[in-house]
Amino acid sequence: MAASRHLHLTRISTTLFRNISVIRSNCKSVTCRNYHRTVTKSTEITYRKYGDPRQVLESNTVDVSNSVQPNEVLVKMLMAPVNPSDINMVEGTYFIRPSLPAFVGNEGVGEVVNKGSDVSALEIGDRVIPRDSGFGTWRSYAVSRVSDLMKIAKDIQPLAGATISVNPCSAYRMLKDYVTLQPGDYIIQNGANSSVGQCVIQLARQWGIKTINIVRNRTEIEDLKTYLKSIGADHVITEEFCRTPEMKPLLKSLRNAPKLALNCVGGKSSTELLRCLAPGGTMVTYGGMSKQPVIIPTGTLIFKEIRLVGYWNTQWNKNNVDNAERNNMFLDLCDLIRSNKLLPPKCQFVPISQFQKAVTTAMEGFKSEKQILVMDESLL
Amino acid sequence: MAASRHLHLTRISTTLFRNISVIRSNCKSVTCRNYHRTVTKSTEITYRKYGDPRQVLESNTVDVSNSVQPNEVLVKMLMAPVNPSDINMVEGTYFIRPSLPAFVGNEGVGEVVNKGSDVSALEIGDRVIPRDSGFGTWRSYAVSRVSDLMKIAKDIQPLAGATISVNPCSAYRMLKDYVTLQPGDYIIQNGANSSVGQCVIQLARQWGIKTINIVRNRTEIEDLKTYLKSIGADHVITEEFCRTPEMKPLLKSLRNAPKLALNCVGGKSSTELLRCLAPGGTMVTYGGMSKQPVIIPTGTLIFKEIRLVGYWNTQWNKNNVDNAERNNMFLDLCDLIRSNKLLPPKCQFVPISQFQKAVTTAMEGFKSEKQILVMDESLL
Repeated sequence: MAASRHLHLTRISTTLFRNISVIRSNCKSVTCRNYHRTVTKSTEITYRKYGDPRQVLESNTVDVSNSVQPNEVLVKMLMAPVNPSDINMVEGTYFIRPSLPAFVGNEGVGEVVNKGSDVSALEIGDRVIPRDSGFGTWRSYAVSRVSDLMKIAKDIQPLAGATISVNPCSAYRMLKDYVTLQPGDYIIQNGANSSVGQCVIQLARQWGIKTINIVRNRTEIEDLKTYLKSIGADHVITEEFCRTPEMKPLLKSLRNAPKLALNCVGGKSSTELLRCLAPGGTMVTYGGMSKQPVIIPTGTLIFKEIRLVGYWNTQWNKNNVDNAERNNMFLDLCDLIRSNKLLPPKCQFVPISQFQKAVTTAMEGFKSEKQILVMDESLL
Repeated sequence: MAASRHLHLTRISTTLFRNISVIRSNCKSVTCRNYHRTVTKSTEITYRKYGDPRQVLESNTVDVSNSVQPNEVLVKMLMAPVNPSDINMVEGTYFIRPSLPAFVGNEGVGEVVNKGSDVSALEIGDRVIPRDSGFGTWRSYAVSRVSDLMKIAKDIQPLAGATISVNPCSAYRMLKDYVTLQPGDYIIQNGANSSVGQCVIQLARQWGIKTINIVRNRTEIEDLKTYLKSIGADHVITEEFCRTPEMKPLLKSLRNAPKLALNCVGGKSSTELLRCLAPGGTMVTYGGMSKQPVIIPTGTLIFKEIRLVGYWNTQWNKNNVDNAERNNMFLDLCDLIRSNKLLPPKCQFVPISQFQKAVTTAMEGFKSEKQILVMDESLL
């Protein structure tokens, strides 16, 4: 194929990246005068070795042909968040280490700008999100097989679409799949100000479930409490408060003890959660922000019959590719987004050309706003 | 009631002890010439305060009347083991702290020697075991409601009957209730030389399940390996071996990685077990001999999808009082005992009069033989 002289078609070969064909080019100038194709400039964020994302990430401007294979579409990416898993993947500390070089970005939203002759499930102008992790969303354009994409309604704002796959889905599944919660039941979570935490608060409110939300102390703690309560939190307390004698009366005042704990911190914080759980309760771990392991007193397992499990969104997606459960979840979430009952976390929009700034801010710590890379600057 | 002048009828009021009426006497001599009753001397081991069992346990000789209420039976106890939970209960470190004074002994076997006029489910001469924990088996005689007892076939030897309720049942449930094991599947356990551990080995062998058994190192380790293999262990390794590079090839040589881990140690040992488990596997904790908590790296929960639960035999019994599941389990276990496929651990028989010696030996540590108190010295 003549184009291969200029455009290097490669398949990234890890499990995660296995279904994604991408057009990459290391040559900065492409002469296309011999081909009846439109060639568009695309910015792509990639890495050739694992390490500190502030150091190892590269931005390349490549040429992307508008021509696609019969079963492929060309997607113009609109927005993509900087998620902790993106950072960990580049660091090489994530459970999955993609083959290098690799694109960055597991989540995002794009628009179909061209489609192959065999594609019937998508139309030009459709909004799409990756079906799986590892898509490489931090780029202006992506050529993708239709089976690697999910269509998302056009009336879902780009920010909501770009951030729907990981955090709202994680919150949804953790509230649905481990414990049968009735309206009036309590759940407790740490890292409640995280993106998942905020989704948990909002979904729980919709379903009549009460939430106890633990956050780290900070100077503007009262503002944070006000904000989390404004999106539906019933109780917002600090890690420090959990360790005071006042925690006991708070727990006693509840109609019933929490049946479900959601842990994204680990270490002491997770042990505190276990203490608050009702006998027979379940703690779901979905993150380990403290980098400390989960520590469980033996008696908590045996006599309090606490069950510990982990939730990994990537795995859930793999186990539920395109089934009714997953499709219904997206329909539910989109309905809540449309009616402003599920808001994205506070965000900062950063043009993809300034990705370094976004990454640096995201890595600064827990108080920074969620960084959203914007590929189409008209959206800024 | 005239007898109350001499015999003090009390109901021990904790949850565990709630259904057991016991005849206790603080007076050492009882004059019964006015009553048409046989009075038998009974040795009872009790405690008035929590503490080191070597210090706080008392032996009392009391008089027990042969006369029982219409719905009661008089049970002559034959044998009762010294279990770790008995020790912990006396220490006050167990999850349940009975009201004091209290009898000792959660497990044992006895023979019905008299029955009330309304009793039809039991006959004189029947062998019985307590239906629940907290019976107080370390005594020569007990008056009990029929509903607090289970009949056990007379052809089950007293030692097997005295030790069937806790350890074989725990092993049975842990192998049955958490993971669906097929013949050829592997399980891994620490504390494999414990009473439960030995039952696990034997039941697994019967069901075609392969076992990897971790024990603490000791001078006579080869003897122990030989013994555990003789009862059906597939692999016997030390805690130290688990931490060597040789552990990896051993795990790789298995047809499939263990789906189930049984933990009675905690601390580092439980973290080792987690490392050996197959993705999606379950670790059941039923003890914490190291007195260290269970420590789980966050990634083990999230990415390896390991599930942690606890097993408490007392609670299982409460949830399954006299149901088909429990009755079938006892039938299964008795069949295995009859055909010598489920042997009790190596035991040392000690007359109840020397209970202090038995307790001291039991507390000396993991190398001692199981101590069995014998109430009927003709069985020695």
